[in-house]
Amino acid sequence: MGKSMLDLVKECDNFPYFEDNPEHYTSLLSSYYIFKVNGCDAALGYIPQSVVERFFWIESEWKVDPTSRTVTLMAAPDATPEARTEIMSRLLADAVRRDTFEVLKGWRHEMYPIYGPGGAYLLEMERSASPLFGIATYGVHMTGYVQDDEGVKLWVARRSKTKQTYPGMLDNTAAGGMSTGEHPYACAIREAAEEASIPNDVFSERAKPVGVITYFYVRDARAGGETDLLQPEIEYIYDIRLDPSHAIKPCDSEVEDFRLWTVDEVKQSLSGGEWKPNCSMVIIDFLVRHGIITPDSEPDYLEIVARMHRRLPFPTASFKVR
Amino acid sequence: MGKSMLDLVKECDNFPYFEDNPEHYTSLLSSYYIFKVNGCDAALGYIPQSVVERFFWIESEWKVDPTSRTVTLMAAPDATPEARTEIMSRLLADAVRRDTFEVLKGWRHEMYPIYGPGGAYLLEMERSASPLFGIATYGVHMTGYVQDDEGVKLWVARRSKTKQTYPGMLDNTAAGGMSTGEHPYACAIREAAEEASIPNDVFSERAKPVGVITYFYVRDARAGGETDLLQPEIEYIYDIRLDPSHAIKPCDSEVEDFRLWTVDEVKQSLSGGEWKPNCSMVIIDFLVRHGIITPDSEPDYLEIVARMHRRLPFPTASFKVR
Repeated sequence: MGKSMLDLVKECDNFPYFEDNPEHYTSLLSSYYIFKVNGCDAALGYIPQSVVERFFWIESEWKVDPTSRTVTLMAAPDATPEARTEIMSRLLADAVRRDTFEVLKGWRHEMYPIYGPGGAYLLEMERSASPLFGIATYGVHMTGYVQDDEGVKLWVARRSKTKQTYPGMLDNTAAGGMSTGEHPYACAIREAAEEASIPNDVFSERAKPVGVITYFYVRDARAGGETDLLQPEIEYIYDIRLDPSHAIKPCDSEVEDFRLWTVDEVKQSLSGGEWKPNCSMVIIDFLVRHGIITPDSEPDYLEIVARMHRRLPFPTASFKVR
Repeated sequence: MGKSMLDLVKECDNFPYFEDNPEHYTSLLSSYYIFKVNGCDAALGYIPQSVVERFFWIESEWKVDPTSRTVTLMAAPDATPEARTEIMSRLLADAVRRDTFEVLKGWRHEMYPIYGPGGAYLLEMERSASPLFGIATYGVHMTGYVQDDEGVKLWVARRSKTKQTYPGMLDNTAAGGMSTGEHPYACAIREAAEEASIPNDVFSERAKPVGVITYFYVRDARAGGETDLLQPEIEYIYDIRLDPSHAIKPCDSEVEDFRLWTVDEVKQSLSGGEWKPNCSMVIIDFLVRHGIITPDSEPDYLEIVARMHRRLPFPTASFKVR
């Protein structure tokens, strides 16, 4: 027996739901501290208690309150994002110096934004540290495909065997994280070129945004580093309908090869657990939108679709300000 | 200022979220009783206390427990669905006789199914009574569209001015509720023929299932009848790409006319509040999947997509048993 579609979705969306078991949810949540910034009431992320205990919090810059179970970044309420970012960067640099956290060994030199209510930009932080604070992070994933009388075929990447994470596993046509200031379309067109050699003019003519998947991931051993860190993730989705004559080729050493797969091959590889977990969700979303996974044939259709579009308990980005 | 896309979504998905305000959520929920059937632990719906107080519960058939705030249908744990349905039907017939509820004046003579964990069919009940118990209900909505070099155009229906609910408002190409035993595809192909005169062969060649929208609606005065009744709804979505030469015509007196609208006309009519509320969500979902509403241009993109795919706190249907 292979993995069901719902098994695959649950591998990514594995933070519990309040409604399923209020006691369990409440007790789990009480092992986390809520991350806030001074002057803003919203929860921005959840920090495991074990992480709170290992940081060296400078008292003038952070307020750690075991009663309300909050960690608050104490820049002035009207501080600039830069001022908040400085405080965060000092904390993380100190943790790196002390070698406190496994996950910081994968330092990316890439800054991820944190938004408050209404999409207000509050601060940014180093990407590899984001799971320590459990903040929502943003990315794009895209699927190149070909459609003819025989049906749909999908461009599937295989990750290089030497990649640090998920070596040799199957991957979407292209994907990448959105760092501070980047908007979904700009990120998508850049990643399409960098990872799948898709020229900008082909992308702009043939790609379209088709939704967003969101899920709440609790890191386990497979992700590497500390476990129980939280990763609420937002992945903007693009479909690119390519000409059958357009062959996708790897652009760097991250991808071993690209191949055009039939829907049956894709389904088999999903069931076989051959995909990087969040990439399998992107494929499932594609198969739902293209009428290949149907409510009449998929037993868990409703649960799958709802869980791939989880409403996260944090404020999120707004790329067009109202 | 017209209505934003998020305003429209919030008109349908207006039951609060636990995470937004746990105290408010918990206090609101405590004004409802949980509907259960004997032998099954799952909550199947929420009944307002005011409704619980007005039914005449036969003690041998129902257990109303103010402590656990549950109303349990007391057929034997291994009773057949028919046996449970009889108990429910007796209760409702009695309420009709006593003229207890406004909503029962719209008796539909149509039975809606109730499912337990794993999609097990438990019982059925009269459609017009479903909001009294707050059970999840199922339907299909479909959008006929034409796509050419100029872009996408959508087939929009206008409801008859004499219709009881939402007279004169805009509506999807076709839609309908799924009664007991009906599966999504069968319901969709039937409604396409009945409401939009789309022949079965055209539907089977050109329609595809493209997802499902789910939301948790609290009835207000506009819906008619008692307020604060709950309607968690599940609408399977179909797109039908029609030939430009295919003109859709009304089939019965429910629809005043069909017109092919440009995307700009559709957007304006959404902003103007001209659509029946849940139909506007179907259109928003269409515009998201077709790359017309984009994350770069819609400020509330994430909130919109997540709330149109709400995970309901009840067991739901599975049309293919594993």
